[in-house]
Amino acid sequence: MPAHNLKSMCVIISMYSKQVEESISNANASVGDEIELFDRKTGKKVHGTLMPKTEVGDPNSIVLKLSTGYNVGIKYTDQKEIHLISKKKEHTFVKPELKKKRSLPKVVMIYTGGTIGSKVDYVTGGVYMLTKPEELLGAVPELADIADIEVMPLMSIASEDMGHEEWKKIASAVVDATKMNAHGVVITHGTDTMHYTAAALSFMLHDLNIPVVITGSQRSTDRGSSDGFLNLASAVRVAAQSDIAEVCICMHADSSDLKCSVIRGVKARKMHTSRRDAFKAINSLPICYVDSNGEFEYVGKYRKKTQNGKQTSAFTNMEPKVAMLKAYPNSDPEIIDYYLSKGYKAIVIEGTGLGHAPTSTADESHSWSKKVKKFCEAGGIVAMTSQCVYGRVNSMVYRNLRLISSAGAIHCEDMLAEVAYVKLCYLLGNFSVKQAKEMLVKDITGEITLRSEIDSFM
Amino acid sequence: MPAHNLKSMCVIISMYSKQVEESISNANASVGDEIELFDRKTGKKVHGTLMPKTEVGDPNSIVLKLSTGYNVGIKYTDQKEIHLISKKKEHTFVKPELKKKRSLPKVVMIYTGGTIGSKVDYVTGGVYMLTKPEELLGAVPELADIADIEVMPLMSIASEDMGHEEWKKIASAVVDATKMNAHGVVITHGTDTMHYTAAALSFMLHDLNIPVVITGSQRSTDRGSSDGFLNLASAVRVAAQSDIAEVCICMHADSSDLKCSVIRGVKARKMHTSRRDAFKAINSLPICYVDSNGEFEYVGKYRKKTQNGKQTSAFTNMEPKVAMLKAYPNSDPEIIDYYLSKGYKAIVIEGTGLGHAPTSTADESHSWSKKVKKFCEAGGIVAMTSQCVYGRVNSMVYRNLRLISSAGAIHCEDMLAEVAYVKLCYLLGNFSVKQAKEMLVKDITGEITLRSEIDSFM
Repeated sequence: MPAHNLKSMCVIISMYSKQVEESISNANASVGDEIELFDRKTGKKVHGTLMPKTEVGDPNSIVLKLSTGYNVGIKYTDQKEIHLISKKKEHTFVKPELKKKRSLPKVVMIYTGGTIGSKVDYVTGGVYMLTKPEELLGAVPELADIADIEVMPLMSIASEDMGHEEWKKIASAVVDATKMNAHGVVITHGTDTMHYTAAALSFMLHDLNIPVVITGSQRSTDRGSSDGFLNLASAVRVAAQSDIAEVCICMHADSSDLKCSVIRGVKARKMHTSRRDAFKAINSLPICYVDSNGEFEYVGKYRKKTQNGKQTSAFTNMEPKVAMLKAYPNSDPEIIDYYLSKGYKAIVIEGTGLGHAPTSTADESHSWSKKVKKFCEAGGIVAMTSQCVYGRVNSMVYRNLRLISSAGAIHCEDMLAEVAYVKLCYLLGNFSVKQAKEMLVKDITGEITLRSEIDSFM
Repeated sequence: MPAHNLKSMCVIISMYSKQVEESISNANASVGDEIELFDRKTGKKVHGTLMPKTEVGDPNSIVLKLSTGYNVGIKYTDQKEIHLISKKKEHTFVKPELKKKRSLPKVVMIYTGGTIGSKVDYVTGGVYMLTKPEELLGAVPELADIADIEVMPLMSIASEDMGHEEWKKIASAVVDATKMNAHGVVITHGTDTMHYTAAALSFMLHDLNIPVVITGSQRSTDRGSSDGFLNLASAVRVAAQSDIAEVCICMHADSSDLKCSVIRGVKARKMHTSRRDAFKAINSLPICYVDSNGEFEYVGKYRKKTQNGKQTSAFTNMEPKVAMLKAYPNSDPEIIDYYLSKGYKAIVIEGTGLGHAPTSTADESHSWSKKVKKFCEAGGIVAMTSQCVYGRVNSMVYRNLRLISSAGAIHCEDMLAEVAYVKLCYLLGNFSVKQAKEMLVKDITGEITLRSEIDSFM
């Protein structure tokens, strides 16, 4: 296994005023400790666990969790004293020895961080990243009955901080896993940009012949209500038991805790900020559902494992000069000139409806077609998608569509804007501009479907 | 009624080569005419209707629709002659005299264009804008039994070309309609940016005390399969019969042709490029459904008409220097500097998940928090929304959220990015920056709900 860099993070949300912070510090106390607040004037004492202060309310009020379980805010004044009673009990983690069953299919679990790798400190309310991915496995002991799991700690970051460099590392780690004869790979990942990473891996990994299943959780895994357990168990099942040979996302299918959906990496999108079933297949059906008993129900298209014996490889070059932007009422198309001046090679426009941008506007300076033309004539690629999210763009129906299309914009069929963005980074990183233009509207790995599947809208 | 400017548009998609276009013109023929193509060498004649050339295929091939109904492409050469047989029959429109029933509630219909005001020429396949809105009413004669309709032709444009100026005109026209004692207003509008206009009118119109119902169609109204008839009939019913006192969108509720949903103007979004039920209520239930029998089913929240007797007014000032942009993996936050240099007053960021932007990135130049801070310190407003579309942003859960929030970004609760954009244009057009910041996260007209309604996700 290659050397991977694992960093850990510790997060406590605390917003006390400077004066209060100092008094807490002078008492050698910190958030989570048991303290006593003593009022010199009245002689009153209040005993409780020191909580972090949230943005709401007075920063000079100290928040204590009482033995009743209730939180109380007490105004801190010069007459008050903070006495430390006892330091916070450090959590100890059970690190169960996972029973290794070599007869089971081998699954490599690549750990990248995200909420699935975090836990909430019940006392303080703070969120911690797990330093040891094994803790996550320890939380779902039944995994040992599904697969022979090999953990590959790769990084521990929040997914909003993922970029091209992280995608490259993950793709290379998947190639390493295939060399370890893995039956499948599970990648634990933050949910925010999970669909971007899924699309990137879908394009980067050539001759992929195993399931690469990305999963995560919307709620941290030390909560009883966490979606992480079912997501992880289902992802391991897909990696160990399915004949899928592509990158996919495995997350809750609905708000119950009974079923996950497995969605093609190039057809998935996070559609809700917080719900467990936030990930939806767009313009496509999920590949399959996996229920909590481990039963599979296959419903959509996917590529199957073959016997061609080719070694998986990763095309990890990504062009950084690709932008994604939105066309909307009164939007100024001069932004295209900005990207041109910065040496950008391609732009993805999230147009309105069937792929419109303001075109025959009363105020000509707000018409996008001239700027699109200029960018294309300078050798750039303009990809047109739709901000509707669902559906297909079409360059032929209306006059404005024809105008923006003859200016050079390439309408990207039923491809998601995010996928078109990732695809252009990949294409321009590995092929000529001419080839990239041609390949943009050709299906490479399921990102373009000529006919959208019935019932694939919400 | 004030003087309104009505322009008409005629659109035919034609892409013959210059040589072919000239020969067609020399024969005094045009698309839709019956012609004969004569080959001087072989003596062969082909007779048919001249069709427009689409992008696909050879621009030197003339496309004829034969009497069999089939289209044929014939290579045009010097040996060929074009003979005009007969000019295209002009469509004649039935302009029924709408029976005026003064006893019915008065509904003012403001006509702005869009697909609902277009028809397809079956012979040529071209799409035409209707020059006379009355033609649209003539297609749905039962409207005369629902309301006493007064048509106000305002403009005839595709909605992707709508901007602040058009919003102002429409808002003023609504105020005019209230002065005409209308029970309600129907606005026919293109679907692409219908939800932006709905949000704009929601903020601009103060003391609105009637339903302002925006409707349109995804397919042109001279097609049997058009959704325009039911949408228009339902919109007129809502305007004539409901006690709603806000701006709403009335479009198909599902793919059947039996039911429309009425969605609050600040909670609506076009979620599909082409389906009839493209408009969905986001983080909210629709106000009501109206079925094809005219039955109402109320399900969500709305403001009701009052007896306060105040005259509706329009606050039409809109700040043009507001931008909407997206944060995504590897995105360069320097774009914020660009907007700052261009004198922009506010930026709406469509962040990931709960309202993240790349923050603690390995490559610091890709971290958004510094640029956000700089923009805010220069007096600008940064509004944080989510590209998930559904759900609520939250500045407190994770460390990165806290960082972007303390840089100055204002998390906009469950407000749609498009609505936050329109709201900022409105706020900065009518109030101080300080007031605008405060009002951004306060509910003005239903755009922010403290608790999302159950079952409002897909």
